[in-house]
Amino acid sequence: MTRTMSTLNTDLKERIGKANAEVVRRLVDARPFLIDMAPAKDVVPGLGGGRRRVHHSGPPIELARMCGAQKGAIVCAALAEGWAQTPAEAFQLLEAGDIELGCNHEHQSVGPMAGIVSPNTWVYVVENRTANNVSFAPEQQARATFGAYDDAIAVQERRTSSGIIGPTLRKALKHTGPLDLGELMAQSLHMGDELHNRVTAASCLLLRALLPGLVKVGGAEVLKTIEYINEQSVFFLAVSMAAAKSMSDAAADVPESTLVTTMCRNGTDFGIRIAGLKGRWFCGPAQKVRGPYMPGFGDDDAGLDMGDSAVTEVIGVGGCAMSAAPAISSFVGGTAKDLLDSVPKMRQICTGRNPKFTIPILDFEPTPVGIDIRKVVKTGILPIINTAIAHKDAGHQILGAGIVHPPLSCFADALRAFGAHYLPPRS
Amino acid sequence: MTRTMSTLNTDLKERIGKANAEVVRRLVDARPFLIDMAPAKDVVPGLGGGRRRVHHSGPPIELARMCGAQKGAIVCAALAEGWAQTPAEAFQLLEAGDIELGCNHEHQSVGPMAGIVSPNTWVYVVENRTANNVSFAPEQQARATFGAYDDAIAVQERRTSSGIIGPTLRKALKHTGPLDLGELMAQSLHMGDELHNRVTAASCLLLRALLPGLVKVGGAEVLKTIEYINEQSVFFLAVSMAAAKSMSDAAADVPESTLVTTMCRNGTDFGIRIAGLKGRWFCGPAQKVRGPYMPGFGDDDAGLDMGDSAVTEVIGVGGCAMSAAPAISSFVGGTAKDLLDSVPKMRQICTGRNPKFTIPILDFEPTPVGIDIRKVVKTGILPIINTAIAHKDAGHQILGAGIVHPPLSCFADALRAFGAHYLPPRS
Repeated sequence: MTRTMSTLNTDLKERIGKANAEVVRRLVDARPFLIDMAPAKDVVPGLGGGRRRVHHSGPPIELARMCGAQKGAIVCAALAEGWAQTPAEAFQLLEAGDIELGCNHEHQSVGPMAGIVSPNTWVYVVENRTANNVSFAPEQQARATFGAYDDAIAVQERRTSSGIIGPTLRKALKHTGPLDLGELMAQSLHMGDELHNRVTAASCLLLRALLPGLVKVGGAEVLKTIEYINEQSVFFLAVSMAAAKSMSDAAADVPESTLVTTMCRNGTDFGIRIAGLKGRWFCGPAQKVRGPYMPGFGDDDAGLDMGDSAVTEVIGVGGCAMSAAPAISSFVGGTAKDLLDSVPKMRQICTGRNPKFTIPILDFEPTPVGIDIRKVVKTGILPIINTAIAHKDAGHQILGAGIVHPPLSCFADALRAFGAHYLPPRS
Repeated sequence: MTRTMSTLNTDLKERIGKANAEVVRRLVDARPFLIDMAPAKDVVPGLGGGRRRVHHSGPPIELARMCGAQKGAIVCAALAEGWAQTPAEAFQLLEAGDIELGCNHEHQSVGPMAGIVSPNTWVYVVENRTANNVSFAPEQQARATFGAYDDAIAVQERRTSSGIIGPTLRKALKHTGPLDLGELMAQSLHMGDELHNRVTAASCLLLRALLPGLVKVGGAEVLKTIEYINEQSVFFLAVSMAAAKSMSDAAADVPESTLVTTMCRNGTDFGIRIAGLKGRWFCGPAQKVRGPYMPGFGDDDAGLDMGDSAVTEVIGVGGCAMSAAPAISSFVGGTAKDLLDSVPKMRQICTGRNPKFTIPILDFEPTPVGIDIRKVVKTGILPIINTAIAHKDAGHQILGAGIVHPPLSCFADALRAFGAHYLPPRS
């Protein structure tokens, strides 16, 4: 019996190897293009038809367990949508269950931090031209995304995004045509970005690519759009995430693969999904982010890890490409040596390499890609995730930024479930 | 007598130390702003009044010793200016001495590679707002600057630069107002540039800064300008050089200083000047550049080191900031380790540090600045200069890029002259 079991295991190991290679191939071969911007209600599954509904970041969560920042961001969206006139009214609607909830990742979407997408949120539309799937991410609103909901600033920001920024960028994109994000992302890794917390170069490159379109559109709304974009430090983040979602969704269903295709957090839970167990969530507690705070804030104020942005780590950038972005240490803490060491560390839990994404300071070594739950469990090395810090309560802006890890239990649970699914029951 | 001599030396050493600190202070305190673009004839000393005259890169040189690429670039300028109708006519004018020659560095100017500035060349106008001096550098024409002079491309390129690009950028700058180049350069060092051979990020940042102005100007000429800029890999190079010239000119006359304030090459001679011996040139043979060639070219085709761009190394970027730009190894050769080692090496021959220019991968250490001829002679360590390679003959485009050093003799000669000037004759 032991021999048979072992043969079966060897056979499964080989099949896992093949399945994992297929996942890596799909991630590496993906060709994400920014093709449009649109109101979520027109494109995101579930948000059309005049429903009072929002999607949030992270794995699915019931209202009772939802963190303060996500609630604040929903209140902000409710005000911007006109579902409520005051924050108190909006909180009431939410608590009464009169706002439907869904999770971005189950609707072809990803959103930074609270990640709240409501019907009139404008989203980037990214097409993976290899697998022909489409993904969405909301145009980033710096304040609302952290759970702020004051009328004068956060709500106005959402309205400006929907009323001016989204439509203007859409017009510009009509002139430029689809933009090759893979190429742009590869270039930005040579310009000090890691494409999650640091997207300074990618933001410039995207703006440059949009430039002829913006000039052709012309006028006051274009000037307002440029001003708005230049005020944001992370213009490209949502685009990077939509691209990563389009890449990882193409690999979301590969039976017998042990590779991670989703990592996300809602400020309460951290959730992962793997290619071999399509659609199943393995959740554990969202962790505390380690990193410097803005002046006046500290550990007691901070919420837990939140946002869909860890989709960037899934495709081999962000924490898997940190060595490319030495300037990020001023934002997330640590030394240049920590950054140089981080990519070799991530190689130990990744199956493949992405030859399209290379890191100059490591002599153009490709970034590691394809986090294997087996390797995580075996080595105890956890994926490095670059992230920002939100407040634990509703109504605040960004508090800081830093490094965070998933809980090991997600990977252990997923591995156990994988075994239960693919290994015959022991007699 | 020996005691007296020694006392004198100690005293001079102290005075040199003070003078050198003053040079470093002027370099570090400089605040270069891009304030305008203009035709050279309107702003560059010597090029007005309808004269048939050009300025070239490097130290002054007589026609008989001038390299092929500079002659080719002058022929191109003569055709673009309408001084001649054919290359043969232009060569005839030049060889007959009917085109006056001057050197950029003696006319508040610097130019990349051949560096030919003719009356109708449009130049960037950079003001150092600390010392209130102004410097110029020609809008870069990718082909002509390497000595190409074919009508259809190189001459047309000069005419497009003068007819469309320069005037359009001038209009955009009128809208944006003066742009702070120091800040922009500091930022680009955090984005993988070293500001000489690699200006990818700085080019994006400058374009972004110009963007509101370009949108306000609008129209076909703006679209043409954007296209032209995006085709250039080194849009910012001439701007970087003009900024560096404005910084180094402010330090060009500090008696008793042994610091280098000019390094430049004309494809025949390498010349330096030092702050303590204002205006005097110390020249040696221009060297062969070591680096990868474009396919189809090799050592036998290459001209010698050429251009005013080493002004960037004088102010502590370029070769003094190479560790900031790991991706440059794909252009100039070498490994990441070579690049990481290069800045510590340059520290050994530099007197100061520029706290405004920092290198993330070296834990934000400031770039070394202020090359001391004494340290160069004592250690034998030569400044690292990042550069491109032109053909030895007139009529060609870029051949490659690489690393080059000045000849040691320039520094030894300057030190000897310094001693002769400042030390009393031995009895």
